[in-house]
Amino acid sequence: MKQTRTDRVLQKLENADALLVSDPNAIYYLIGRKIYPGERFLGLLLQKGKKTKLFLNTLFPIDKSDDIEIVSYSDSDDLFQILSEHIDPGIILGVDKCLTARFLLPMQERKIAKGFLNGSFAVDHTRAVKDEEELDLLRKASQINDEAMGRFKKLVYEGVSEKQIADQMLDIYLELGAEGYSFEPIVAFGKNAADPHHMPDDTRLKKGDAVLFDVGCVYHSYCSDMTRTFFFEQGPSEIQKTVYDLVRKANEDAEKYVKAGVRLCDIDKTARDVIENGGYGKYFTHRLGHFIGIEDHEYGDVSASFKDLTVPGNVFSIEPGIYDPQTLGCRIEDLVIVTEDGCEILNRYPHDIEII
Amino acid sequence: MKQTRTDRVLQKLENADALLVSDPNAIYYLIGRKIYPGERFLGLLLQKGKKTKLFLNTLFPIDKSDDIEIVSYSDSDDLFQILSEHIDPGIILGVDKCLTARFLLPMQERKIAKGFLNGSFAVDHTRAVKDEEELDLLRKASQINDEAMGRFKKLVYEGVSEKQIADQMLDIYLELGAEGYSFEPIVAFGKNAADPHHMPDDTRLKKGDAVLFDVGCVYHSYCSDMTRTFFFEQGPSEIQKTVYDLVRKANEDAEKYVKAGVRLCDIDKTARDVIENGGYGKYFTHRLGHFIGIEDHEYGDVSASFKDLTVPGNVFSIEPGIYDPQTLGCRIEDLVIVTEDGCEILNRYPHDIEII
Repeated sequence: MKQTRTDRVLQKLENADALLVSDPNAIYYLIGRKIYPGERFLGLLLQKGKKTKLFLNTLFPIDKSDDIEIVSYSDSDDLFQILSEHIDPGIILGVDKCLTARFLLPMQERKIAKGFLNGSFAVDHTRAVKDEEELDLLRKASQINDEAMGRFKKLVYEGVSEKQIADQMLDIYLELGAEGYSFEPIVAFGKNAADPHHMPDDTRLKKGDAVLFDVGCVYHSYCSDMTRTFFFEQGPSEIQKTVYDLVRKANEDAEKYVKAGVRLCDIDKTARDVIENGGYGKYFTHRLGHFIGIEDHEYGDVSASFKDLTVPGNVFSIEPGIYDPQTLGCRIEDLVIVTEDGCEILNRYPHDIEII
Repeated sequence: MKQTRTDRVLQKLENADALLVSDPNAIYYLIGRKIYPGERFLGLLLQKGKKTKLFLNTLFPIDKSDDIEIVSYSDSDDLFQILSEHIDPGIILGVDKCLTARFLLPMQERKIAKGFLNGSFAVDHTRAVKDEEELDLLRKASQINDEAMGRFKKLVYEGVSEKQIADQMLDIYLELGAEGYSFEPIVAFGKNAADPHHMPDDTRLKKGDAVLFDVGCVYHSYCSDMTRTFFFEQGPSEIQKTVYDLVRKANEDAEKYVKAGVRLCDIDKTARDVIENGGYGKYFTHRLGHFIGIEDHEYGDVSASFKDLTVPGNVFSIEPGIYDPQTLGCRIEDLVIVTEDGCEILNRYPHDIEII
């Protein structure tokens, strides 16, 4: 068990006596064991001053651990009866946000606790501040991603389809030592780059197209995530260059603004102001960034509605974009680690306009 | 919208006035649109005698539809306020089993309905009975899987690792016209085959090893799933042959038993009796099968605890196994469609002992 991490979670837990964590990624973070039981219940019960319990289906055995009591149940057991034997019915039980109605409604009906509340913030806020072990893995994951970007841009040729490029990416990541994708890669040519959620299809590459790669890999369970927008065989038009430079400036101004103690919404605003002042505000249709770690998208936004202050060890993306179907779809994304007086930018792949 | 399907769901909905479906796969099934909004809320509200509503984040636009009212919300909106404006606070609201605490707890707190219950059975029971359009896609997905199995067995050679084999499978599926995996393929050599959840690792193939492939693909959003156990370069020992033949008989006796109107638990028992009578009961550690469709594992088990009667159009796996680390790990799995007087076995790949 990662005692420091579980202690940090319990310290943050307010208004509840115990926390039942069901998210397999959070459980991996807290006890270092990967258990993905699919539709079956998995729960880690963190209790102030008491031993941690893990409710685990017998189909997913794990090694014993001195600091965790493993409560096994089988498919034929009455899970809620077992839970009620191990949880004090008089407590307020925090559950995590991803506990599903399938389990939560019967827990409420069977009154396994006096009250239920969403206690995810305790885990979320703990996970949002990475420790040194995590930071090292995030650095390495992004280093692989930088190398991979250098290889991906060499895959292009006239007439190749987005899917054909995307289908080669996994092998490159695996060769470079990654475990897999952190998310399905986005490869978008020409106008497709103006759809921020475009998925690779049979669109074929033409001279002069923008080529957007939004890609990431997993290294020792930690994610990378980076976007670059290239131009195929021909440089951008004047107006495309204006758009590109705005996105680049938005990215770099935001990265310069990042340091411990600033509001996340103000980082978003820094980038958004650049694009709005350039006249493209309505084409920047999403938040500036998201937190990242074991999952590609973790709790924490760099957006207008997220007013929390940054602290050292926060890791998030800075990914401004302009999506103007008439001109250019362009996004430039890096990951950054917040430090006391600035940030460490994890992606070293340059921001310059590059013709490939 | 697939009106027949939504009608079937509403007919089955008991004790609730409306059903809020949040599972993207169920929504695809009901309205034919694929929307995977990640952490953001997605909800399809089915109401008796009223127009269906879809609550959808503005980041995931879809085409308008005459029979669905699309209620858009943005990240800066108060989602629960919007829900409360569209849901009658006096009703009992069915929610589906995968609605998460992140949304369910605030819905309860904000009293957007008088009561909440798990109404998943209405969707689950509807999806468990496939219509003709679905059956055709399931047939085709399994046909591709049969062809793929014939190709996979040719990938083996002495010293190849499980991972090296697994890494080639996706391309083969794509070449054969599938869209991707229905689940990460299981490739298990030798003793690894005795772990039913083994994931491909660096284990290298040796002469005489069992070679277990548990594989499936997706075709037009429908899944296949099949397991075969081969032997590498050398036939099974006498005792291994006994184990293999027991598994095969368990599979085939169960498939012969399947027809409309039998209890699912009795299909499980038919296979389990064969293995228990052979003396290997304790090594058959899982249910006999699971329902399948848009998802690899759908609602419905072929297990001792599932006493429902089969109906024509049920589609599930028959996958007995014996996992004896001292002797052999072996599983033989087919998909079947229940018919009035028997079943249609979707996998044609033979069950015979095969040395590869």
